[in-house]
Amino acid sequence: MILSFRKSASRECVETAVRRLAENGLNCQIVAGADNLVIVVTSPCEAMPGHFFSHLEGVEKVVKLTARSPLAAESGCSVVKIGSAGGGRIALGEGQEPVVIAGPCSVESREQIIATAGAVKTAGAQALRGGAFKPRTNPYDFQGLGLDGLKFMAEAGQASGMPVVSEVMDVRDIEAAEPYLDVFQVGARNMYNYDLLKELGRQTKPVLLKRGLSATIDELLQAAEYILVSGNLQVILCERGIRTYETRVRNTLDLSAVVILKSLTALPVLVDPSHATGKRAYVRALSRAAIACGADGLIVEAHLEPERSISDAAQAIDPATLKEIVEDAALLSDVLGKRDRQQSLPDLKMPVS
Amino acid sequence: MILSFRKSASRECVETAVRRLAENGLNCQIVAGADNLVIVVTSPCEAMPGHFFSHLEGVEKVVKLTARSPLAAESGCSVVKIGSAGGGRIALGEGQEPVVIAGPCSVESREQIIATAGAVKTAGAQALRGGAFKPRTNPYDFQGLGLDGLKFMAEAGQASGMPVVSEVMDVRDIEAAEPYLDVFQVGARNMYNYDLLKELGRQTKPVLLKRGLSATIDELLQAAEYILVSGNLQVILCERGIRTYETRVRNTLDLSAVVILKSLTALPVLVDPSHATGKRAYVRALSRAAIACGADGLIVEAHLEPERSISDAAQAIDPATLKEIVEDAALLSDVLGKRDRQQSLPDLKMPVS
Amino acid sequence: MILSFRKSASRECVETAVRRLAENGLNCQIVAGADNLVIVVTSPCEAMPGHFFSHLEGVEKVVKLTARSPLAAESGCSVVKIGSAGGGRIALGEGQEPVVIAGPCSVESREQIIATAGAVKTAGAQALRGGAFKPRTNPYDFQGLGLDGLKFMAEAGQASGMPVVSEVMDVRDIEAAEPYLDVFQVGARNMYNYDLLKELGRQTKPVLLKRGLSATIDELLQAAEYILVSGNLQVILCERGIRTYETRVRNTLDLSAVVILKSLTALPVLVDPSHATGKRAYVRALSRAAIACGADGLIVEAHLEPERSISDAAQAIDPATLKEIVEDAALLSDVLGKRDRQQSLPDLKMPVS
Amino acid sequence: MILSFRKSASRECVETAVRRLAENGLNCQIVAGADNLVIVVTSPCEAMPGHFFSHLEGVEKVVKLTARSPLAAESGCSVVKIGSAGGGRIALGEGQEPVVIAGPCSVESREQIIATAGAVKTAGAQALRGGAFKPRTNPYDFQGLGLDGLKFMAEAGQASGMPVVSEVMDVRDIEAAEPYLDVFQVGARNMYNYDLLKELGRQTKPVLLKRGLSATIDELLQAAEYILVSGNLQVILCERGIRTYETRVRNTLDLSAVVILKSLTALPVLVDPSHATGKRAYVRALSRAAIACGADGLIVEAHLEPERSISDAAQAIDPATLKEIVEDAALLSDVLGKRDRQQSLPDLKMPVS
Repeated sequence: MILSFRKSASRECVETAVRRLAENGLNCQIVAGADNLVIVVTSPCEAMPGHFFSHLEGVEKVVKLTARSPLAAESGCSVVKIGSAGGGRIALGEGQEPVVIAGPCSVESREQIIATAGAVKTAGAQALRGGAFKPRTNPYDFQGLGLDGLKFMAEAGQASGMPVVSEVMDVRDIEAAEPYLDVFQVGARNMYNYDLLKELGRQTKPVLLKRGLSATIDELLQAAEYILVSGNLQVILCERGIRTYETRVRNTLDLSAVVILKSLTALPVLVDPSHATGKRAYVRALSRAAIACGADGLIVEAHLEPERSISDAAQAIDPATLKEIVEDAALLSDVLGKRDRQQSLPDLKMPVS
Repeated sequence: MILSFRKSASRECVETAVRRLAENGLNCQIVAGADNLVIVVTSPCEAMPGHFFSHLEGVEKVVKLTARSPLAAESGCSVVKIGSAGGGRIALGEGQEPVVIAGPCSVESREQIIATAGAVKTAGAQALRGGAFKPRTNPYDFQGLGLDGLKFMAEAGQASGMPVVSEVMDVRDIEAAEPYLDVFQVGARNMYNYDLLKELGRQTKPVLLKRGLSATIDELLQAAEYILVSGNLQVILCERGIRTYETRVRNTLDLSAVVILKSLTALPVLVDPSHATGKRAYVRALSRAAIACGADGLIVEAHLEPERSISDAAQAIDPATLKEIVEDAALLSDVLGKRDRQQSLPDLKMPVS
Repeated sequence: MILSFRKSASRECVETAVRRLAENGLNCQIVAGADNLVIVVTSPCEAMPGHFFSHLEGVEKVVKLTARSPLAAESGCSVVKIGSAGGGRIALGEGQEPVVIAGPCSVESREQIIATAGAVKTAGAQALRGGAFKPRTNPYDFQGLGLDGLKFMAEAGQASGMPVVSEVMDVRDIEAAEPYLDVFQVGARNMYNYDLLKELGRQTKPVLLKRGLSATIDELLQAAEYILVSGNLQVILCERGIRTYETRVRNTLDLSAVVILKSLTALPVLVDPSHATGKRAYVRALSRAAIACGADGLIVEAHLEPERSISDAAQAIDPATLKEIVEDAALLSDVLGKRDRQQSLPDLKMPVS
Repeated sequence: MILSFRKSASRECVETAVRRLAENGLNCQIVAGADNLVIVVTSPCEAMPGHFFSHLEGVEKVVKLTARSPLAAESGCSVVKIGSAGGGRIALGEGQEPVVIAGPCSVESREQIIATAGAVKTAGAQALRGGAFKPRTNPYDFQGLGLDGLKFMAEAGQASGMPVVSEVMDVRDIEAAEPYLDVFQVGARNMYNYDLLKELGRQTKPVLLKRGLSATIDELLQAAEYILVSGNLQVILCERGIRTYETRVRNTLDLSAVVILKSLTALPVLVDPSHATGKRAYVRALSRAAIACGADGLIVEAHLEPERSISDAAQAIDPATLKEIVEDAALLSDVLGKRDRQQSLPDLKMPVS
């Protein structure tokens, strides 16, 4: 159950509601949304009639949800705004142009990331990605440049006027990393790292949450819920392929997840075709497919000299291909957007069961 | 190794080549292609230099392939032509308009299939699908109307002027079924039924081969090879979702398979978004994605009253939605086709390893 | 719903019951069990009270099952008896010693199979396996010796006094193959080949049914049901590994399936550790595990010179290892059997839902 | 490459070796093993001949490994010793009796865990498990009692004389938790949480590392390597089921992983049949299978009133069943151990490729 308060509701109203819930044996959590406050009842409350609370002062509506992730279903931001020190700003989500985030797998050096940022920007990408803290399967592989890498990214972002997206893995790094990035990325391997999610839920910058290696759609939504209920409503979901038996690809891109997520939540959904396939030859065609089925954007690995990438060389694309992908996305979004606006599309929103 | 003969090559040339291969300890099979004859060497022949045979009379070229499915890689039809008694004709594959094949999961009655065919045709579909012989997981479920159902389909196809696509499961049914259908469908459950594939390889009508429930891309190509090497080069491949751990869909649609198949073989590739997802709400968006990433067409379950389908009711769409899908496909194909023709696209063809 | 008739029930009683069911709009099928006749109601009949038919003459009991495979749950043979021309006889199933079936992947020649049969018998195996009709992923791989191979097997079985287990793939081969084998094997690739299953259901010899490459436990039981409802109650189930993402094994052996199958059906359950792992080094340890968790026996690939096997060389074991496996199985069965008899074990039988 | 030093080697010898490696452009890491020091060369060094370093003073042997996890392959403890404040001591691994670790999914209260510890001890278990920090898929589910729960566990362990095994999820909790537990558990969801693994590698108490939800065997070994290379050689691996398409179990227990792990590493391997199946009816039979194929022990969820467990109620067993499992394990280990000692078993150790 979610109690949604009017914008004008006083702090007192909210406190009264919390007290009233407590009298009924219900625990709850207050979450500050973009526009208003909501209370999520965290105790089981199936039997409790919603109207019991709808007449409380300041309460705009009471949503009784069976969803295991009510905030993801109802209260997350449908448009996530990403700012940057360099002045670049993006709006990602419902009704927006598709966003392409691009950059190398790893920050390899100050020069590399600055040059790449320039090329990526010229190719039409709107934000810069790059790994400074790298989760590597093998302890002897390159583990990233760490905080130094992140500082190089910040510099590259500022120089090119693009916001910076980078992964954090360790809760202890968040505070130090925060000034140098514009979006916190949670990698696939950390989707179940609930302490990390909670901590990012306390941050004010958006979080890009990747689907775990073999996470279900519902587990992804519940991972998002950890961030949302901790107070950060700016969550971007990302489909990046799931683990299957097929060996011709690194992972199997699951575009049905995009369609299903868009029907279950307002949160923006990105697609990462690079990690999904692991081979650059497949990236462009699958980027087209992702935008065609409704993804709000792409996150793509791009490198000035793809074959020389320190990590994930096989999947990085060059700036020329990136440019094609950006143009493809804009074209498809334009053509399909026009077509959809001419129709009264059935609402695909379905209850999370 | 494949020896490809000139159109003008005499029967004698071919016989000489077979003899010469035999002298070198190599078995082979003669396959009559659309335009010419080819010989597939079926013995291991990695060590044998190709030029050894390239000077034989009538031989146009010798292809040394490491592929496990050389005919699928090199000799299958890139455009499959489907004729019909009712006069409808389709060309499916490279450079053609996307084809939408639609119809009910099962033929339920003569009236139903005739009415559906009309509606499906009006909605813009180019061919009629419908199951007469039904492979059902449970022996107590409706097993289809059998040959009678197929006769109703033939009638419906003729009335609406559309070719008819239907599944055969038992080698003993092929002969009786042949007059009533225009494309033999092999269902996902029978992709590994090699005796069925061989028998269909001896037919003159095209075969639509669905990917097995958890078949790899290479297994699908090798299943196609069974048909091709038996002499039937008109094979249409079909991605229909694979089995994964995700429970929100019936199967996980693997669109990377479309992209990879198009890079490995000239054979046309269809997508079946209905069986892939099992839910009608997801069919349209994934149909868009399929066409956007290069599928040559779609095969979709459509029903006049979807909720009343005898089988697979949850996934059938109504004619109005079908019309949207047909239009989406045409629009995407047109827009992306124009864009691709303006560019000199890199050749994505890669060796099958 | 199943109506089970007394041994003494006359044909007339059964006909009356069928008529009575028909009057209530219910279709049914008569199946001749080992000891008595049963009628399976094949129409949906959840709403029909069972006692409605329990007073009919000759009816011993009426079982109302929600199971999708009622015969597998209730009426299949719990002990399958395998005879052979050579005089060897095996009883496989509940309360019996564990049975080890062994032999080469493929029959390679008359000499090979006869020599192997002797070695396998000496090592302690009770039945001979060997492939004559081989379902190969690739059309250019060795496809088996066919009927000739089967005749060699029959000879080897007779010479060694062991029953013969071999695969049939094509319904058209059943009649010709029948005299030369004692158990029809259905390979993993054909578990969904329902026409083959139906035809084997009309045979009088037992059927060894392997789980499909990625078949669920319930699909396996329903495949068995196709055989059972066609009249053959002698079905042996076989777990042989399922397809997963793990690459260190060919398939992932699913021993929980053994435990679950034993709780859902009386049918005997074998384990094939050779195909499950694809590597001989793992076969012995997993054979121990299989027997320890309740499998009724093993089917193992053994070869006189494992590295020289024409097919599946990596997984075949030599006769010395086979002897250890046979002894392991006997030891474990003895020790655990004694322990279980000292206890009053809880009945693990659960309803198939 | 690993340089293994003699026990008597001086600090100077080690420093000389590090310098010599550096002169050759190789980075390395010093790891203090149970008996001696080893140096792991962390730079690629395939081309460097091992004998180049084998004559350095103090170096006992140089192991050139292609394994991605050389310490797991060569240097981890084959027997992990677990002590406890209450005086209980266990030796887990090669040549030891099978160890059964049991207890509730979650610590629910002081009374519950103390009573359970007593019952579990009486049933024959050697160590106590119980979750205080709980990684829950849903943020609104019971998240465990935290540090308080751990203190109750410590008390229960001391009272019953058993070591305590409990999960930590957050690097920031390690220091506070350390005094209250005897083995750090890493749950399946955190197997890829490399910062957590590194931190636990700096601890002096053993680590029980569970296989990730869909981790490959090689990923599990590389996760262990993160702990080992950080200096903690006492790692216990645990197979707990992997994610597949099968829906009758929570996860599919992969016993082939046990056999393969035992062939690739000296580290002890446990099996968790409770999380693997999710249903108590299957736990006992699969425990037998686990011990039969060579697992060094079991970790099982047990509860005084299984149906009343706050979490994972469906899989907990009662103390009576636990007693049977403990006795099964001892019996199987005894019988198979005797049999193995009578034979000269082939060494199953294979190179990690």
